[in-house]
Amino acid sequence: MIIVMEQNADEKNVGRVIESIEAHGLKSHIYRGTERTVIGVIGDTVGTGVNGFRSMPGVENVVPILKPFKIASRKYMPEGSVVKVGNVEIGGNEVVVMAGPCAIESDEQLLTIAKSVKNSGAKILRGSAFKPRTSPYEFQGLGEEGLKIMRKVKKETGMIVETEVMDIRDVPMVADYVDILRVGARNMQNFDLLKELGKIDKPVIIKRGMSATIRELMLAAEYIMKEGNHRVILCERGIRTFETATRSTLDVGAVPVLKQETHLPVIIDPSHAAGNRQFVGSLAKAGVAAGADGLLIEVHHQPEKALCDGPQSVTTEMFSELMPQLRAVAAAVGRVIE
Amino acid sequence: MIIVMEQNADEKNVGRVIESIEAHGLKSHIYRGTERTVIGVIGDTVGTGVNGFRSMPGVENVVPILKPFKIASRKYMPEGSVVKVGNVEIGGNEVVVMAGPCAIESDEQLLTIAKSVKNSGAKILRGSAFKPRTSPYEFQGLGEEGLKIMRKVKKETGMIVETEVMDIRDVPMVADYVDILRVGARNMQNFDLLKELGKIDKPVIIKRGMSATIRELMLAAEYIMKEGNHRVILCERGIRTFETATRSTLDVGAVPVLKQETHLPVIIDPSHAAGNRQFVGSLAKAGVAAGADGLLIEVHHQPEKALCDGPQSVTTEMFSELMPQLRAVAAAVGRVIE
Amino acid sequence: MIIVMEQNADEKNVGRVIESIEAHGLKSHIYRGTERTVIGVIGDTVGTGVNGFRSMPGVENVVPILKPFKIASRKYMPEGSVVKVGNVEIGGNEVVVMAGPCAIESDEQLLTIAKSVKNSGAKILRGSAFKPRTSPYEFQGLGEEGLKIMRKVKKETGMIVETEVMDIRDVPMVADYVDILRVGARNMQNFDLLKELGKIDKPVIIKRGMSATIRELMLAAEYIMKEGNHRVILCERGIRTFETATRSTLDVGAVPVLKQETHLPVIIDPSHAAGNRQFVGSLAKAGVAAGADGLLIEVHHQPEKALCDGPQSVTTEMFSELMPQLRAVAAAVGRVIE
Amino acid sequence: MIIVMEQNADEKNVGRVIESIEAHGLKSHIYRGTERTVIGVIGDTVGTGVNGFRSMPGVENVVPILKPFKIASRKYMPEGSVVKVGNVEIGGNEVVVMAGPCAIESDEQLLTIAKSVKNSGAKILRGSAFKPRTSPYEFQGLGEEGLKIMRKVKKETGMIVETEVMDIRDVPMVADYVDILRVGARNMQNFDLLKELGKIDKPVIIKRGMSATIRELMLAAEYIMKEGNHRVILCERGIRTFETATRSTLDVGAVPVLKQETHLPVIIDPSHAAGNRQFVGSLAKAGVAAGADGLLIEVHHQPEKALCDGPQSVTTEMFSELMPQLRAVAAAVGRVIE
Repeated sequence: MIIVMEQNADEKNVGRVIESIEAHGLKSHIYRGTERTVIGVIGDTVGTGVNGFRSMPGVENVVPILKPFKIASRKYMPEGSVVKVGNVEIGGNEVVVMAGPCAIESDEQLLTIAKSVKNSGAKILRGSAFKPRTSPYEFQGLGEEGLKIMRKVKKETGMIVETEVMDIRDVPMVADYVDILRVGARNMQNFDLLKELGKIDKPVIIKRGMSATIRELMLAAEYIMKEGNHRVILCERGIRTFETATRSTLDVGAVPVLKQETHLPVIIDPSHAAGNRQFVGSLAKAGVAAGADGLLIEVHHQPEKALCDGPQSVTTEMFSELMPQLRAVAAAVGRVIE
Repeated sequence: MIIVMEQNADEKNVGRVIESIEAHGLKSHIYRGTERTVIGVIGDTVGTGVNGFRSMPGVENVVPILKPFKIASRKYMPEGSVVKVGNVEIGGNEVVVMAGPCAIESDEQLLTIAKSVKNSGAKILRGSAFKPRTSPYEFQGLGEEGLKIMRKVKKETGMIVETEVMDIRDVPMVADYVDILRVGARNMQNFDLLKELGKIDKPVIIKRGMSATIRELMLAAEYIMKEGNHRVILCERGIRTFETATRSTLDVGAVPVLKQETHLPVIIDPSHAAGNRQFVGSLAKAGVAAGADGLLIEVHHQPEKALCDGPQSVTTEMFSELMPQLRAVAAAVGRVIE
Repeated sequence: MIIVMEQNADEKNVGRVIESIEAHGLKSHIYRGTERTVIGVIGDTVGTGVNGFRSMPGVENVVPILKPFKIASRKYMPEGSVVKVGNVEIGGNEVVVMAGPCAIESDEQLLTIAKSVKNSGAKILRGSAFKPRTSPYEFQGLGEEGLKIMRKVKKETGMIVETEVMDIRDVPMVADYVDILRVGARNMQNFDLLKELGKIDKPVIIKRGMSATIRELMLAAEYIMKEGNHRVILCERGIRTFETATRSTLDVGAVPVLKQETHLPVIIDPSHAAGNRQFVGSLAKAGVAAGADGLLIEVHHQPEKALCDGPQSVTTEMFSELMPQLRAVAAAVGRVIE
Repeated sequence: MIIVMEQNADEKNVGRVIESIEAHGLKSHIYRGTERTVIGVIGDTVGTGVNGFRSMPGVENVVPILKPFKIASRKYMPEGSVVKVGNVEIGGNEVVVMAGPCAIESDEQLLTIAKSVKNSGAKILRGSAFKPRTSPYEFQGLGEEGLKIMRKVKKETGMIVETEVMDIRDVPMVADYVDILRVGARNMQNFDLLKELGKIDKPVIIKRGMSATIRELMLAAEYIMKEGNHRVILCERGIRTFETATRSTLDVGAVPVLKQETHLPVIIDPSHAAGNRQFVGSLAKAGVAAGADGLLIEVHHQPEKALCDGPQSVTTEMFSELMPQLRAVAAAVGRVIE
């Protein structure tokens, strides 16, 4: 950490900063430039209250040198981590496709879609029983009933299943029904929920918040990992910008940045980014080309009857046509989709 | 609701939309322009799945006419609602100042600050016992211990007290200790938490999410109100933009927009928007001038020792100098700060 | 266009709107809902002053139905337009790679880079003689001297060359030296410059402004095309968002949106979006996978000595390694890079 | 400037950075931390190519310490600069109100509005003869004809007049007709135009670009001042964010930030920020309360007939009611509106 003093800071200001550094058990190093005095702080400053220094008289700026994450950092596992669930490896050479409806609506609906996407090559079935809806007047999901349907479809198809958990009180129940738990974008900084997910023994997909920086996404993963659960998968799903032609703006650059900074698998959700099924295929291919380890795609056999996110759900036909294209792109970048 | 058909939509497409409208118990009205066919939907469409129409073949766009909120709407209470708590009225002629530290740190700290801000004219004491921190390595708050301190300080000073609740499981406990509960920006769309807060009998301050639209803030309020608790106060605290000179960008325009669209009281948090105590006064004055019903200001007697948000906390001295200026601005716009 | 009246609009309000519609030479159609009156406007409303209606008493909202662009619209040329320059076709089956330094620095620099990128497969040489720099204290480009160097290198290598024009007074001179003129992001809405470029007989690349919507980019193209020059190429180069891990956020979703709405070729500039050469390759591959018709990549043989944009320039070695990967991705999506 | 080396940078990397620093005529200072080596650069680094260092092998980050602006900096004139034009001082104790129509439409229109706003207390008449319109099909302004009207109205009313200049070739002509020239938001980084305005002897208002940072606005001012014209006035007019309830988001926090960083007068344009006349008054009051030195307000006597920006133009009646409120707010913050 480097502390930049104001131009007119005096020796007393500098002295108080030095004292404070030492009070934190750290060492300091003063460097006097022509216009400013700069103080280097030696030692592990993560969690030592950078803000404290920023508040001191005469301090203009505090520049952190070390990254604020530890377990999520690439340095922690330079070769990259692979999250295994059943016979599927996320973060390995395969690009894993997860597909299914936005919301679980009925036995028949989920089973129809599951069979179709499995047939096209999806390895994991997505589907939500709890829906975070902007308006309280919209369909809120089937709840535990939906999870029972998911368990049944899992048995019939042999697919790995994943679903969203919203309420911290539901974590044990949801973990009982499914293979992978998902944290939605709106809950990315619901820290109590993250901590609870750190205590279970199931992989967790954490979606980037609509206005979360890449750094904040990594720190959210750190919340989970710090509690002991290291099987975390990061998901870029588009950020909120001024552009409205798509529902969100897919930050495809987040893929190479995350792969450099962290060892965790990174997947792309092209459906929420696009908000329109016409654009989902292009975004999915872009994600694979950029190096994503997986995709999370909304598929519905009758999108116009979907209770949620119909406009952005590709049809089962579109999905079956998209998969060979994704396979080709994966191969072009040295990866595989089986 | 108005449904705009694509230019090349045919009669079959139009027919299916009409059928679907009628299946929702609504009426339709067709209007054929020179280039497009447009279908008007007559009846209450809120919660009927606008998305469904958007997914149908031949549909280009769906334009909602009615606002999606009901109880929060200005139409519900055109004269504006006043939230009473103890002897204070929020939303009346008085501009209510809430002040105190970011985090409750100790008996002595809270009491010192409380006495000082009360003396300067603050009516309500703010202070958090549970802190949502971006990094798991930062101070997470004193928890219930902090709430006990707050109760003690409330007794000694007679101030009304408010604090943040993060974990849905803590709602009853927190409601037991304090007068007003606060939902932080990161939890604005934690819908389960909102529903729980709709069932208690204490006022709730809901802060706008960093990337939440004004409309989404109103819908979040609607989640609380729909469960029965109508004592909701909206708080603008800055949104996330590309500008980094301030921590967030205070959307002061949200004040007149919210006052027009909703009957709920609207307050401003200049501290989180500024992120730097030098700018807090200007933002606070701007908020009052724009028509805010209250202010939520972070104050600390020793900001350089604060465990949280030190840089944006004004000192007790700065606060006592700011209050007369705020009184003058309030008077200039026909309001009062006692 | 649809005009939505306020709930409490009276007959006089409606009457004045109808009068105004007719005064514009358009026809109207009234539709009375349960809560609102809605007025449909029949006829070509582009350029008739939508704002005028929005200002009338009793009007709540004005919803345009028709798109505001004409010549740039896909409808104008459904099969897509191909911009030919020399023996290269942009917008055809080939994905055209344009590469070269940010700024032209010297004979030797440009020639070295040109030979290298040509050898790797680039068809078009980029390089700027006029540099829009945020600070007046930074290198502003070699000016006409740079263009002379570019002409010399063009002769020696046979490459097609492109450069930026900033000052409207320089348009004829720049058009004299190079094959393609480029409008930078900061000038996307310099409308006088656009009009001037509409009068020349050279293709124009127009880069999306940092905060420009896709719709505004198309309208900027319309400014050029309206004057007669239809050889316009659109370039997505990243938009400004809150994320700072990359210099800009590449809006890869703009590619399918633009390909749907307009007939113009769409290229991607991964260099300015990335701001860091480590991420350029991933973004370039993502762009090709999403359907871009070309790439504009900054390459330098000695980036640490570059007078401009060194950090985001890939080395000539990196570029020669990237090209085969781009070829593979292009092939995967049914396109070709020779 | 501080150069942070990568964790695994070796002595050769460090050596090359040191060499490069010395080659720039600067001095270096090495500081070796436990995890990183950090190199301090001593001397004036503005304009020396920070990017160059960022591109060198082993360099992780470059942190500038000095601000990149010189003449615009507060340090250059700590007491603040006052721009005098006629008998009006902008940047002094008075808050100067500039008002008038978006576009000059006719003799009668401009004269009617001018008389009315003058009567209400406006000192300066605004009005544009050249209009930057997003679409080429919208009204582009009367051109020189409009400037002649403005000159006539200036004579009749004695008001100071200001207008926008868009085309660099028009600078001398526009400077001949009016007292103050305005650079619109879309041209804030049209650097050639800025340089030209640096050579004239008339004050220049420069509006912040829709996605420009405060720092970039100051650097745009620096472009003008560097050429010799120091009479520059900065204008905050709202930035582009995800929120659409207002046309732009007024960044009222820019006022105290700019007043701290620069000595230049700062004014607020509440009209373009609001985009809706209902919200203009609140934003204007907020601007004055935050410390603005002036306001730029769009006023029209018949907004529903305005050729431009009708929805955001307040009526002459609204303006005459607003002025006493603005006077009261100005007085509350120790300023005056005559």
